[in-house]
Amino acid sequence: MIDPGFTTVEMSAVFTSAERVRSLLRVEATLARSQAIDGVIPAAAADEIERVCAAEYLDPEQLLVDGWEQGTPVLPLLDYLRGNLSAESAAHLHYLATTQDIVDTAMMLQLQRTFSHLDQLACSAGRALQQQQAFRSTPIMTRTFLQPAEASSYDLRLAHWLSPLTDAIEVLRSQTFPLQFGGAIGDRFGQKWTLTMANQLFLHPRFVPWHTDRTPVIDLMQAMAQLVRWAAKVANDLVLLASNGEVAMRAGGSTAMAHKRNPIDGIRSLAAAQSFHALANAITTSGPHELERASGAWHAEWFAIPLIAQTAAATVDAVGRALASLTIAPADVVVPPGRAESATELARVVFERANPILSTQHPYTKEENERLTA
Amino acid sequence: MIDPGFTTVEMSAVFTSAERVRSLLRVEATLARSQAIDGVIPAAAADEIERVCAAEYLDPEQLLVDGWEQGTPVLPLLDYLRGNLSAESAAHLHYLATTQDIVDTAMMLQLQRTFSHLDQLACSAGRALQQQQAFRSTPIMTRTFLQPAEASSYDLRLAHWLSPLTDAIEVLRSQTFPLQFGGAIGDRFGQKWTLTMANQLFLHPRFVPWHTDRTPVIDLMQAMAQLVRWAAKVANDLVLLASNGEVAMRAGGSTAMAHKRNPIDGIRSLAAAQSFHALANAITTSGPHELERASGAWHAEWFAIPLIAQTAAATVDAVGRALASLTIAPADVVVPPGRAESATELARVVFERANPILSTQHPYTKEENERLTA
Amino acid sequence: MIDPGFTTVEMSAVFTSAERVRSLLRVEATLARSQAIDGVIPAAAADEIERVCAAEYLDPEQLLVDGWEQGTPVLPLLDYLRGNLSAESAAHLHYLATTQDIVDTAMMLQLQRTFSHLDQLACSAGRALQQQQAFRSTPIMTRTFLQPAEASSYDLRLAHWLSPLTDAIEVLRSQTFPLQFGGAIGDRFGQKWTLTMANQLFLHPRFVPWHTDRTPVIDLMQAMAQLVRWAAKVANDLVLLASNGEVAMRAGGSTAMAHKRNPIDGIRSLAAAQSFHALANAITTSGPHELERASGAWHAEWFAIPLIAQTAAATVDAVGRALASLTIAPADVVVPPGRAESATELARVVFERANPILSTQHPYTKEENERLTA
Amino acid sequence: MIDPGFTTVEMSAVFTSAERVRSLLRVEATLARSQAIDGVIPAAAADEIERVCAAEYLDPEQLLVDGWEQGTPVLPLLDYLRGNLSAESAAHLHYLATTQDIVDTAMMLQLQRTFSHLDQLACSAGRALQQQQAFRSTPIMTRTFLQPAEASSYDLRLAHWLSPLTDAIEVLRSQTFPLQFGGAIGDRFGQKWTLTMANQLFLHPRFVPWHTDRTPVIDLMQAMAQLVRWAAKVANDLVLLASNGEVAMRAGGSTAMAHKRNPIDGIRSLAAAQSFHALANAITTSGPHELERASGAWHAEWFAIPLIAQTAAATVDAVGRALASLTIAPADVVVPPGRAESATELARVVFERANPILSTQHPYTKEENERLTA
Repeated sequence: MIDPGFTTVEMSAVFTSAERVRSLLRVEATLARSQAIDGVIPAAAADEIERVCAAEYLDPEQLLVDGWEQGTPVLPLLDYLRGNLSAESAAHLHYLATTQDIVDTAMMLQLQRTFSHLDQLACSAGRALQQQQAFRSTPIMTRTFLQPAEASSYDLRLAHWLSPLTDAIEVLRSQTFPLQFGGAIGDRFGQKWTLTMANQLFLHPRFVPWHTDRTPVIDLMQAMAQLVRWAAKVANDLVLLASNGEVAMRAGGSTAMAHKRNPIDGIRSLAAAQSFHALANAITTSGPHELERASGAWHAEWFAIPLIAQTAAATVDAVGRALASLTIAPADVVVPPGRAESATELARVVFERANPILSTQHPYTKEENERLTA
Repeated sequence: MIDPGFTTVEMSAVFTSAERVRSLLRVEATLARSQAIDGVIPAAAADEIERVCAAEYLDPEQLLVDGWEQGTPVLPLLDYLRGNLSAESAAHLHYLATTQDIVDTAMMLQLQRTFSHLDQLACSAGRALQQQQAFRSTPIMTRTFLQPAEASSYDLRLAHWLSPLTDAIEVLRSQTFPLQFGGAIGDRFGQKWTLTMANQLFLHPRFVPWHTDRTPVIDLMQAMAQLVRWAAKVANDLVLLASNGEVAMRAGGSTAMAHKRNPIDGIRSLAAAQSFHALANAITTSGPHELERASGAWHAEWFAIPLIAQTAAATVDAVGRALASLTIAPADVVVPPGRAESATELARVVFERANPILSTQHPYTKEENERLTA
Repeated sequence: MIDPGFTTVEMSAVFTSAERVRSLLRVEATLARSQAIDGVIPAAAADEIERVCAAEYLDPEQLLVDGWEQGTPVLPLLDYLRGNLSAESAAHLHYLATTQDIVDTAMMLQLQRTFSHLDQLACSAGRALQQQQAFRSTPIMTRTFLQPAEASSYDLRLAHWLSPLTDAIEVLRSQTFPLQFGGAIGDRFGQKWTLTMANQLFLHPRFVPWHTDRTPVIDLMQAMAQLVRWAAKVANDLVLLASNGEVAMRAGGSTAMAHKRNPIDGIRSLAAAQSFHALANAITTSGPHELERASGAWHAEWFAIPLIAQTAAATVDAVGRALASLTIAPADVVVPPGRAESATELARVVFERANPILSTQHPYTKEENERLTA
Repeated sequence: MIDPGFTTVEMSAVFTSAERVRSLLRVEATLARSQAIDGVIPAAAADEIERVCAAEYLDPEQLLVDGWEQGTPVLPLLDYLRGNLSAESAAHLHYLATTQDIVDTAMMLQLQRTFSHLDQLACSAGRALQQQQAFRSTPIMTRTFLQPAEASSYDLRLAHWLSPLTDAIEVLRSQTFPLQFGGAIGDRFGQKWTLTMANQLFLHPRFVPWHTDRTPVIDLMQAMAQLVRWAAKVANDLVLLASNGEVAMRAGGSTAMAHKRNPIDGIRSLAAAQSFHALANAITTSGPHELERASGAWHAEWFAIPLIAQTAAATVDAVGRALASLTIAPADVVVPPGRAESATELARVVFERANPILSTQHPYTKEENERLTA
C-alpha cells in the first residue's frame, strides 16, 4: 500500500495484482486466438484457451509470489492454465512464446490504460487553465531569478503554462505501444499471426523483437516525464506565487498555526514529481540488458513502471486540482501597452492551438477506439 | 500493492497504512506521557490521551486520504482524537508540537524496525557464507575485467564477499534514530520532556531540530545503501559465475527452454538493488528543504522511505537465499602454494572479525532492548 | 582538463572556451544582420557589429570568469563589443534581446555540431557491423539471464545490435535545434527577423520562447541517450563474450599479468556511458525552471551539456573501435536449420534498412547543408 | 576546460593532468622507498626510482591518452620509468603491485587535498555567518511551505544555517583516506611495508584491499555531499529571501533590465550543487564492481571524481561569497519575547559548538600535518 497522495484511484486500479494477472491472461488468450485465425493452432484449442483465460484468477497476489519461486509469474500461470485445459489444448497454449513475450505485452496493455488516464488528467488541468478567462488581463510582476523583472499581464504566464501542456499532450498521443514477440531468443518475427495479435490488442506490430532493446519502454517513460515536468513547473510557480499572496488556491490546515494557507495541491504535485523522476531513472538510465535477456534490469521494470505511472498521475492530478481553484491577485503595477498586447497575442495563439486538443478524446486502447469509432 | 519480489513479508508489515497510523498514535501518546512526567501537562490528560491512542484506528487508509485534503495525516488524526477526548484532555493533546514533529518521529520508529529486519537478513546472509567451509580450499580462476586472471582458492572470494558485509552490519548498528521536536518553526529544543520522550521511544534526543536538515534521514538511507551495494555485488558475481557453471544455486524454470538453470535469487537481488538506488536518490539528492519547512521534498519521503526499506530488504533477502543454496565447482587450475596460503590467511582474519558480529543480536527498538537486557 | 578517455578530439574541440565565445559572437552578429535585413536596425550598424564579432576574442577563459562576476558571459562580452563599436552601432547591438536568448541559441549551435559528430561516430560503428560479413553464419550459443540458451548464428546478434543503432541514428536526424528569442520576460515572439535569424543559423524558428520550458534541450539529451544506450549495450555484450573467448578485440595490457587480453575499448565505452547518464540526469530530471527564468537549473546546463556531449562521443567512439577489431569464435554447437534461416532473414531485413542510412551524410549545420546542397 | 563557475582556482589545480601524473609518480616512489625500508627491495633501487619519479613528466596529457591505448595510464608511465632506470632498479619498480593499487592510492592523495580545500571553504563560509552579529536580533518572518508562519529573530535562521555546517565539517574531518594495495587479484595484504607506505603518505593502512569494494570512495563522496547539501540549502534560502528584499547580497547585472539585483552567488551555488549530485550518483549508485576488478565502473571514477570535487568546491565557495556580502532587512513584525529568547539561546549553543571548529585547521595531508605539528 503506497501513500495515497502518490497515486490516483483510477491509476492504482490499473496496477492491482488482479489487473496484472488479467493482462497476462488476456495476452495468452489473444495469442491462441490469433494463431488459430492464421491456422497455426486448431480453433478448438483457441476456444478452450480463451474460455479458461476469461475466468477470474482466484489469488493473483499468491501467483506473483509463486512467480518469484520459478522466475516469472507466467510459469505458475501456465501450470494453472494447463491444469484447466484438455491435454490437446494445453499443447497449443503459449505456442512458440517465451515468458518475456507475455510479460512485456501485458505491461503494454497496462501502459495503454495509463496513458489514457494521464491524457484525461492533462486535459482536465488544461481546461482549468482555459477557464481562467476572467483573470487574463490581470496585471502581474514577472520574475527572473525570482527577482522582480517587468510588468505584464497574466496572459503571459497563462500562455507559458498552457503551451508546453499542449506539447506534452501531443507527445502522449503520438506514442505507440508495441507488441512483444520474439520467442526464446528473439529470433521469431514477422509472422502473420503477430500482426493479427497486434491488431486484436490495438498494439503496434513492431518487426524486431525488443527483448533487450528497451527503447519502446523508455520512450513511454520519457513521454510521461515531459508531462510530469510540465506539472511540476506549474506547481512550483504556484507555490512560489502563493507565498506572497500573488495567487490563491485551495489550502490545507496547520496544527500549530491556524492562519496558514498551505498550498497542498502544489506541494503534493512537487512531491510526486520528485518521486516520479527518481523511479523513472531506474528504467531510463538502467544498465544494459545483457546478451539475449537481462538479469535484473528487465525485472526492475515490473516494480518501477506501476509506481512511475502512479506518481505521474498524482503529479498531474494535484496540479489540476490546484489550477481548478486558482485565483489571481492583481499586482500594483502599470502594464505598458505594448507588453499587454504582446501577452494577449501570445495567449491567443496558444489557446487557439490548445483548444481542439483539450476537447478531443484520444483512443489509446482497443476499447476506447471501438467506442469512439462506433 | 507492489510486486512481492521487491519486498519481504516482514518488511511490508512494517509499512502498512495501519502501522503508519499506529506509529503516529504512539508518538502523540508518548509526547503526552513525557510532558506529564515532567509536569508540563496534567497526568490525567496523559492517561486519557494514552488510552485513546492505544485503540486501533478503524480505517487507516481513509485517514491517509483525508490527510492529503488537509495537508498531513496528523490533522484528521487530531480531529479524531479530540472527538474521543474530554475537552480538558483535548487541550493538552499535541501540546507545543507541529505535525512534522509527529510524522518524522513516527517515521523513525518505523526505520528502527527496518534496520532490525535488515540486520537479521544481513546476518542470515553472512551465516550462509560462514557455512561454506567445505568449499574454502576449492581452486578458482579469478577474473579482472572479466578476463581470466590468476588461480586462487575460493577462500579469497569468500573473504572479499564477507568483509564488506561485516563493515555494512557495523554501519547499520552505529546509526542513531533521532526524535524530531522543534514545534511550528523549529525553535523548541532541549526541553526536559523531549529527553524523556526520546528515552521512552529508544530514540536519540537530538538537540537541534532537523525539520529542514535531513542529514539524519539521509545517513540512514546511506547505511542501507552500503548493505544493498554489498548484496548487489555478491548477486552480480553469482550470476556471472553461474553463467559458466563455476557456481550453482537454486534455479527457476523457463517456459521455452527446460534445460535452463536461471539464477533467480541473484536476478531478484539485482532488480531490487536497481530499484533501491533509484528511490534512495529521491531522498539523498533531493533539492533543498526551503526556509522553515519544505514544499514537497519533505512529503516525498513519505512515499519513498517505505519503498526504499522494502527494496533494501528484498535485495538482501534474495542474495541470502542464493548463498544458502550455493555450491562451488572446482576450476581446472593449480593454485600456487603462496597464493593458497594468502587466501586462507585473509579468510581467517575476515572470519575472525565477522563471527562475533554475525552471532550477536543488536537492539534497534525499545522492545528489543528490553528483551536483550532482561 | 577532463580525462581524455571520456571525450574525443573532435568533440572536445566543439566545447573549448574559445568556441563557446565564438558561438556567442556569432549569435549577436546574426541577430544584428537579421534585424537589418528586416529593417529593424540600420544596415551600417549590422555591418559594424558583424565585423567586430568576427574578430577572435583574445582571452575567452577570462571572459567566462568575468561572466560569473556579473551573472552571464554575455554581459562582459557586450561591454567588450560596445568598447569596439561606434556609439551609433552600439545602440543597435543586442537589440530587444536578453542574455538567455544569446546563451541558449549559442548552445544550440554547439549542439548542432555535437549531433553531426555523433552521427559520424554512429555511422562508423554501424559500418564496422556491416563489415562483419565473414562471420555472419558463425554458430553461437545465445544466453538469457547469462545462461546458455539455444544455438543460433552470429546473424542473430548482429541484427539485434544493428537494428537499434539504425533507430538511434534516425532519432538523431529527426531532431530540431530551436532558436531562442523571447526578450527579457519571454514575451517577444514571431517577429519576421527571428525567422530570418533562424534561417541564417539553420535553426528551427520555434514560435513560443522556451526560457523556462527546457523540452527542446531535454529532447536532444534523450536523443543522445538513446545512442549511448545502444553503444553501452553492445560494449557490455562484447566484454561479457570476451570473458570466455567467444569474441576477441583489440586488447590492452596489464602490469601484473602479461597474458591478459583486457577489452579496453568496451571498458571505456561502459565507463563513459555511466558518466553520460549521470550527467544527463542533471538536465533531464532537474527541478522546475521557476517563473520567468531559473536560478541555477538553467546555469547547470552550461556545465553539464559540454560534458554530456563529450561522454556521449566517447561511448560511441570506443564501441566503434571495439567493433572495428572484432573477430568471432565459432561455438561448438549445431544450429538447427530453422534457426539459422530465421537469423539470416532477420539480419537481411535489418541490413537492408540500415544500409542507406549508414551511407548517407545528414546535414545538421548550415555549413554542412550548404556543402551537401552545393 | 569546464565552465569556471563550476570549480575554484585552487580545486582545479588539484586535478590537472600534471597533478594526476605527479600523484602516480609519488605513489610508485613511495612504494619503492617503503619496500626498501622494510628490506624487500635494495635501497639503491629505491634511491634511483625516487630520483626518476621526482622529475617532472613532460607531456602528462599525452600520457593519459596513451593510457587508454593500453588500459591505464600506469602502463605507459612504467614504460617511461623503466626507460630511465638501470635494469637492476627497473626490476624492483612497481614490485608486487597492480595498476589499480597505484591509481587508487594516487586518487586518495588528490582527495586528501580536496578535503583540505573544502574544509577551508566551509570554515570561510562559517566565519561569514559568525560575523553577522549585528543582525542577530533582527526580526524576521519565518516561512513554512513558503507561507508566512510566525515572527522570530534572525538568530533562529542563523542557528539553523550554522549547526548543519558544523556537522558537515566534523564529518569531513572524520574521514580516512585508505591506501590501496592488493596486487593483481586482491590477495596481498598486511605486509609490513604497506604500513610504512601508508605512514609515509599519511593514508590509512586498510587491511582488506578495496579493489571491488568502493565503500572508501563512496564514504568520501557522501561526506562531500553533506557539505554540498548544506551549501545548497543556504543558497536556496538566500535566493528566496532576496526575491522580496528580505536579504540583500552582491548582485550581478542584466542586459535587459538595469534595475535587477540578481543573486548570482546563490545561483552559482545552486547550479554547482545540481551538477555535483548528478556526478556523485555516477559513483554512489554505480552498478557492482564485478568479480576481481570492474569493467567500467572503476574507470568512471577517473572522470567523475575530479568533477565532483570541483563542483563541490564551487558550491561552497559561492555560498561563502554570498554570505560574506549578506545584509538582513528587518521584517515589519513584533517578535514575542519567548520566541526571541528561544532563538537567541539556540544560536548561543550552536555558536559555542561551532566556534572552536571554525577556528581550527585540520590536517588532511602529510604536508599539513608536518606543518601543524612542527
